[in-house]
Amino acid sequence: MLTRRPHGSHPPRPAVALLAGGVGAARFLRGLVRHVPQSRLTVAVNTGDDEEFYGLHVSPDLDTITYTLAGVVDPRQGWGLAGDSFAALGALARFYGAPWFRLGDRDLATHIFRTARLKQGAPLSAVTAEIARRFGVRARVLPMSDDRVRTFVRLKRGGLVPFQDYFVRRRFRARVQAIELRGLFRARPLPALLEAIARCAAVILAPSNPFVSLGPILRLSGVAAALRKVRPRVAAISPLIRGRAVKGPAHRMMRTLGHQPSALGVARLYRDVAGIFVLDRSDRRYAEAIERLGMRPIVTDILMNSEQAAARLAKVVLDAVGL
Amino acid sequence: MLTRRPHGSHPPRPAVALLAGGVGAARFLRGLVRHVPQSRLTVAVNTGDDEEFYGLHVSPDLDTITYTLAGVVDPRQGWGLAGDSFAALGALARFYGAPWFRLGDRDLATHIFRTARLKQGAPLSAVTAEIARRFGVRARVLPMSDDRVRTFVRLKRGGLVPFQDYFVRRRFRARVQAIELRGLFRARPLPALLEAIARCAAVILAPSNPFVSLGPILRLSGVAAALRKVRPRVAAISPLIRGRAVKGPAHRMMRTLGHQPSALGVARLYRDVAGIFVLDRSDRRYAEAIERLGMRPIVTDILMNSEQAAARLAKVVLDAVGL
Repeated sequence: MLTRRPHGSHPPRPAVALLAGGVGAARFLRGLVRHVPQSRLTVAVNTGDDEEFYGLHVSPDLDTITYTLAGVVDPRQGWGLAGDSFAALGALARFYGAPWFRLGDRDLATHIFRTARLKQGAPLSAVTAEIARRFGVRARVLPMSDDRVRTFVRLKRGGLVPFQDYFVRRRFRARVQAIELRGLFRARPLPALLEAIARCAAVILAPSNPFVSLGPILRLSGVAAALRKVRPRVAAISPLIRGRAVKGPAHRMMRTLGHQPSALGVARLYRDVAGIFVLDRSDRRYAEAIERLGMRPIVTDILMNSEQAAARLAKVVLDAVGL
Repeated sequence: MLTRRPHGSHPPRPAVALLAGGVGAARFLRGLVRHVPQSRLTVAVNTGDDEEFYGLHVSPDLDTITYTLAGVVDPRQGWGLAGDSFAALGALARFYGAPWFRLGDRDLATHIFRTARLKQGAPLSAVTAEIARRFGVRARVLPMSDDRVRTFVRLKRGGLVPFQDYFVRRRFRARVQAIELRGLFRARPLPALLEAIARCAAVILAPSNPFVSLGPILRLSGVAAALRKVRPRVAAISPLIRGRAVKGPAHRMMRTLGHQPSALGVARLYRDVAGIFVLDRSDRRYAEAIERLGMRPIVTDILMNSEQAAARLAKVVLDAVGL
């Protein structure tokens, strides 16, 4: 006869939620999964960057996170599938002209599947879970919402363009006047996202762009309120080091959108929702000012130039929230 | 000042229409274009075999004809693109299980484009013309209809299955009880198809399967009537030699559907619409019986085991209709 272990003798490992954009978040995730089993991990992902290419629904951030968790992401670019080929994309040029968004042949299968399932009426969250499962991912990967929120960028010169047009086609060189999140006010955050925030032992804001990666998630109705309730166990990681994003336009966006392009500027953006702010050693002069914002500053090396560096940073963040 | 040539000094080359299925028709077409410039050629193609794979609209016969006319068809199989790769298909297996319908990476681009255009509301005929143009095809390639006709095969054992399921997945081994063309009575033939029949100097029924390749075209409302009006210049080529299809199940279908599996049996199917019937030398014993059907029998070598053989057959057929 089986005896049940007394309840509590093996307490479940603490659950962690990560709010994530794409490549920067994925880099941190590679470190985080060294300490947190995927089964205890929820990753809620920005879908404002989703775009239709060739009639296919592409979710760049969701795929980057899923491929990273599956260990199949292209290690060089940080997105797409390792070792993918580009024959279909080349052939699509016959119909659509030269491509500016790289979609590999194997990657295309994911978009074809997603598009077909959405067309059948499946919600994006269900399709995302199916894709993650087929890739052997055990973490829970959630789109921020099943409703469509679409990030547009208003350029100083060039008008209003969809995010991927700005980010990939124009290589984020154009000056940004404003970010517009279409559909934001109608969109409901995924219930599982609000639950994860309420229940997880820690919530981490990945070092992603505060406007176009985390912004869409944080501005969904109810998300900021849910974070405020658990603020002491919410840790945000600065996406800026010495006033610059490791990759991408975050620092330039901060400036043109009227924020100080520094770790302190980012901390100000997150002060209401995060009790802990993790910044780079080179930015330690901001620690005191961050403390005055009512946040606990954690100064460490945040540049993730290796998986080891990411794992070390993850450990520091987990320590900071007491895990 | 330019002087106009007196009308008729350069009579336009006679126009030819081909009613076509897939691989057999394409083989003949390779010979036909040696004699008829593509600009004078209309090919009306069966779309009863169209199928949705992975949410993509695949038109196997249209693509076989288009790729053949563009000179990019896989010469070994007679369908698909020469030198194509299959990375996406392999990746789709992750979501859909092992594939039974081969779609190459470059071929996929055509299906993605077609699907996106149809979704935008473009009629199949417009999309087909766009695809042909992008492949540099000068002949007019027409789907038989812009309306959906779907060929189902009722099996003795196995129930009613879509054509591709019978033909590709089951490799046409199952015994056929009946052919059902869903949507046939609602479908209108493409006006350009009826015009081509009325106006072309010759109409050729390709050596395709009479039930599942030419059957859907011929049974569209108005097509048989249009052919009857020009019957003396309509030539049908037997798809059977010595009672067997070169490839495919035509002879077995004839038997199980109650027809004599021979050139004569095929001639009987076409007697109302074609004035000329081209059969193989090895079947010349049927010539007299075919003549008694009111058709002019043309006996020649119809096996197209080379492009030269196809060109020679095309010449015989064109001669027979007086071109």
